[in-house]
Amino acid sequence: MDEYTPFLDALTALLGCEGVLNDPADHERYVQDWAGDRLGMPLAVARPSSTAQVADTVKLCREHGVRMVPQGGHTGLVRGAMPDPEHAELVISLERMDRIRRIDPLNFSITVDAGCILENVKRAAEAEDCYFPLSLGAQGSCQIGGNIATNAGGLNVLRYGMMRQLVMGLEVVLPDGRIWDGMRALHKDNRGYSLAQLFIGSEGTLGIVTGAVLKLSPRPEKSQTALLAVPSVKAAMQLYALARRQCSDLLSAFELIPRECIELALKAAPQLSDPLDAAYPHYVLLDLAATGPVDLGEMIEALLTQGMEDGLVLDGVLAASMSQSQRLWQFRESMLEGQQQRGEHLRTDISVPISALADFAEAATQAVGTHSPDATIIAYGHVGDGNLHFNVLPPATLAKEETTNLLHDIELLLFDVVDRFDGSISAEHGIGRVKQAAYLARTSDVERELLTGLKQLFDPDQLMGMGRILADPSAS
Amino acid sequence: MDEYTPFLDALTALLGCEGVLNDPADHERYVQDWAGDRLGMPLAVARPSSTAQVADTVKLCREHGVRMVPQGGHTGLVRGAMPDPEHAELVISLERMDRIRRIDPLNFSITVDAGCILENVKRAAEAEDCYFPLSLGAQGSCQIGGNIATNAGGLNVLRYGMMRQLVMGLEVVLPDGRIWDGMRALHKDNRGYSLAQLFIGSEGTLGIVTGAVLKLSPRPEKSQTALLAVPSVKAAMQLYALARRQCSDLLSAFELIPRECIELALKAAPQLSDPLDAAYPHYVLLDLAATGPVDLGEMIEALLTQGMEDGLVLDGVLAASMSQSQRLWQFRESMLEGQQQRGEHLRTDISVPISALADFAEAATQAVGTHSPDATIIAYGHVGDGNLHFNVLPPATLAKEETTNLLHDIELLLFDVVDRFDGSISAEHGIGRVKQAAYLARTSDVERELLTGLKQLFDPDQLMGMGRILADPSAS
Repeated sequence: MDEYTPFLDALTALLGCEGVLNDPADHERYVQDWAGDRLGMPLAVARPSSTAQVADTVKLCREHGVRMVPQGGHTGLVRGAMPDPEHAELVISLERMDRIRRIDPLNFSITVDAGCILENVKRAAEAEDCYFPLSLGAQGSCQIGGNIATNAGGLNVLRYGMMRQLVMGLEVVLPDGRIWDGMRALHKDNRGYSLAQLFIGSEGTLGIVTGAVLKLSPRPEKSQTALLAVPSVKAAMQLYALARRQCSDLLSAFELIPRECIELALKAAPQLSDPLDAAYPHYVLLDLAATGPVDLGEMIEALLTQGMEDGLVLDGVLAASMSQSQRLWQFRESMLEGQQQRGEHLRTDISVPISALADFAEAATQAVGTHSPDATIIAYGHVGDGNLHFNVLPPATLAKEETTNLLHDIELLLFDVVDRFDGSISAEHGIGRVKQAAYLARTSDVERELLTGLKQLFDPDQLMGMGRILADPSAS
Repeated sequence: MDEYTPFLDALTALLGCEGVLNDPADHERYVQDWAGDRLGMPLAVARPSSTAQVADTVKLCREHGVRMVPQGGHTGLVRGAMPDPEHAELVISLERMDRIRRIDPLNFSITVDAGCILENVKRAAEAEDCYFPLSLGAQGSCQIGGNIATNAGGLNVLRYGMMRQLVMGLEVVLPDGRIWDGMRALHKDNRGYSLAQLFIGSEGTLGIVTGAVLKLSPRPEKSQTALLAVPSVKAAMQLYALARRQCSDLLSAFELIPRECIELALKAAPQLSDPLDAAYPHYVLLDLAATGPVDLGEMIEALLTQGMEDGLVLDGVLAASMSQSQRLWQFRESMLEGQQQRGEHLRTDISVPISALADFAEAATQAVGTHSPDATIIAYGHVGDGNLHFNVLPPATLAKEETTNLLHDIELLLFDVVDRFDGSISAEHGIGRVKQAAYLARTSDVERELLTGLKQLFDPDQLMGMGRILADPSAS
C-alpha cells in the first residue's frame, strides 16, 4: 500500500469520485502552464465544488501532512501553479466552483466563485450594462481566483487599475482549513488591517481564494481606437503624456508596438496587411472609451493634430467602427502568436518609472545588442503603466542548449539594467518559481524576514504553495 | 531621578533640543485631536527631522522599553494618535519631516516626506500641472503619513479611490527601528506580498511611515458643479446611477445633503442664502471635472434634463464659474461648522452597499426616531461610495451626562442597523480607540487571530501604537 493511500481514500470519501482525479492519465491538463512548461506530476487533483469542500480538503491535507497547490486556469507564466517536481503535492483545482453568486448593478459589484472564468465574469457584467475592466490575452481560460492570487494586470490598467484595485471583498480558505470571510460589497471600509490586500498577489502561498466581490464600472457605450506611427520610444512616451492630458481620464489602453511585432503579426496572420502605407520604427495602439455626451472622434482628432504638430506622430489610422477597431487590435494578438511560433524565447515583464522607459529601452537594447548582436529584440507592452515586455528571440540557427544558456545570460544582463533604472523584474507575471532567485537576490534582509514571517504566520505547517515566491526551507 | 530620565537624556542627545519637547507646557498641541478630544499627556514629544532619526528614536524606545505613538497633523477622529492615558508614551511627531523630495510629472508621481501637509502636496502637484486628488476638510493641517496610516478617503474617492489606491511606494520605520525601503515609483509591480498595502490603514500600529511615493493624475482644466434638489434619498441614489452612466468617468464628487444641513449652513454662514427658491428634503452636490475637448456644460445639462424627466431632480442650480462653484461647496463646509457649533453630537462614518443606502437611511431614521423622537438626524455624505455620515444632534435641553449616555445608546442602535445591511461601522475614520469595542465585537475569531498575529510579527515587543485597533493585551 502506497503511503498516500489512506489520504487519497479519505479525499475520495470527502469529495466523491468526480471530485478527485487519481489516474495520472487525467492529470495532463493540470501540469502545464500557459508558457507550455511542465515540472512534476501531482499526487492527485482535488476538484472541490464548494468553499466548505475546499476547507475540508485543506484540513485533510493538514492532518496527513500533505502539501497542496491551488490552481486556477493554468495560464500563469512563472510556474506558480505547476506541481512541484520534488515533493508530492495535491493540486486543488477551483474549476468546479464557477458560479456567479450575485450581481448588483446599483452597487457596481459582482460576487463570484473563484473558479469563474474571467470572460464569463465580463459577460455577466455586460448583461447588466456594467463592465468588469480586467482584460488580458488569457481571459477565455484564466480564473478570477488566479487573477487575484497573481494581482493580474492586462490592457486597461492605466484607467482601471490592477486586480488589487478591483477587489472589494474576498473569501479565503486558510492553510489550516479555516475560512476567512471578507466578502464585503463595500466601496469604502476602514476596519482593521487589510487582509484582502495581503492575499491579493500572494500567489496561493497564504490561502486559497474561493470567492470574491469585484468592483464594476459603467459599460462604455462607445470607443475609439487608433494605431499611430511614432518616430521613437521617446516620442511614444511624450505622446502618452499628451494623451493623458488631452483625453481626461477616458484613455483606457496605450500599447507600444515596435515594427518587429508588426512583421511577426503579418507572418502569423496572412489576412492582415500592413496598417499604414510605409513601415515605421514604432507604433502606438490606443483606446478611448466613454459613455454620455462625449465626442471621442473629436478628442482623438485633436490628439492626432497636436501629436503631428509636435512631431510625435508620423502617420496613423483611426478606427471608425467596432470591426475596424477589432482589426487594429488583431495586430496586438497576432504578434503574440507570431512570437510563440518562433519557439523558445526570453519573455520578460519589467517595469520602470514611465519617465525612464525610453532611456531604459535604449540602454537595454544596447546591452543585449553588445552581448548578442544576432538576437532579435521585440519590446512591446503597456507603456502607459511603465510596463514593457522586453522580449528576445534567439538566432534561429542556435542549438537548443545554447539557446537556453544564451537567453539566461541575456535575462541576467537585462535585470541589471532594470536595477539601474529602479525598476521591477516583475510588473505583471509575479515571482512563482521562475523569478524566485532573481527576486530574492534583489530583496533586502528586512523585507525577506517580514515575508518569511508572514508565510509562517499564515501557514505554520508549511504545506501550501511551498517554494513559490519564497524558497522552500526544506529544499535548503 | 524619574525612571525615564536616562531615556529622555539619551533622546535629547540623539535629536538635539529642537527635536525633543520635554516641557508639558509644550505638549498641548499634541494631546488633542480634530474632535477636540483629549486623553492623556505624553512622556515627551520627539520631533525627528529625518528617517534615520526616526529609526534611531524607535531603537532607543525599544532599548528602554518605552511605548511610542506616531503622530501626524492630529486631525483624526478616533483618538488613534492621542497619547495613552494609562501608559507613558513617547509621541513621535513627523511635523519636521515636510520635504517634497521629488516630483516627476512624466511618471505622474510625487515623492514626499510623511510629515508633508496634504495641502502642500496638492499645491506642489498643481505647480507641475498635475493633480493629487485626495481632498478632505482637514487638508490644511493633516499630514500624508496620517493619511496613509488611516487610509484617508474624502470627497473624490468615487473617481480616484482612497489613499490605498494613491500610494505607489512607502518607506517605513518598523517597531524594531529597522527601515523598510519600499519607495518604488512604479505604476505596476508584482513582487512578493504587498507590505505597502498592509501598512496602509494600520493606524500606526505596525510601523511609522516616513516617506511615500504618491500617484498623480493630470490636472483637470475645467469643472462643473451642480446643486440639485431631489425628493428622497432613494431618488438621490438613482440619480447617482444615472450620473455614473451619463458622465463617463468624469464624475468626481457626489454628496448627499439633507435640508437640515442647509439650515445649519445658513445659520453658521449668514452670508449664504438659500440656494433655491423653495426648500427641499434633500440635495445632491456633484462635481464633474475634465481636460481636453469635453463639454461639461452639455454633459450636466443632459443629466439634469434626464433627471427631471425621470422625476429624480426637482430643481437645481449650476455653477457657471469657479466662484459660483466655490459658493455651492461652501454649503458643504459651513454645514460642518454649524454641526460643530451644536456641541456634543454623534458622529458616524458608516458605509453600506450603494444599492442599500436608501433603505438603510430609512431604517436608521426610524430606529433613532423611535428611541429618541427629539433628536435631530443629519445624514449626509459621500453616497457615491455608499458612505453616510449618519450623525445625530441631541435635544438641546439635555444635560451633559444624559447627552453622552443618549448618544452612546443611539450609536449601539445604529450599528445594529448597519449590521443588518452588511455594512461597515467605519468607512473612513478607522478604528483607533473609539470604535475598538464595536469593531472587535463584530470581528470573527479567525480575523482577530490573524490581526493579532500580524501585530505580534511586526511589533514583537508590543511598544508601538498599543491599544489602537486591537486591545492592549497588558490592559486585560
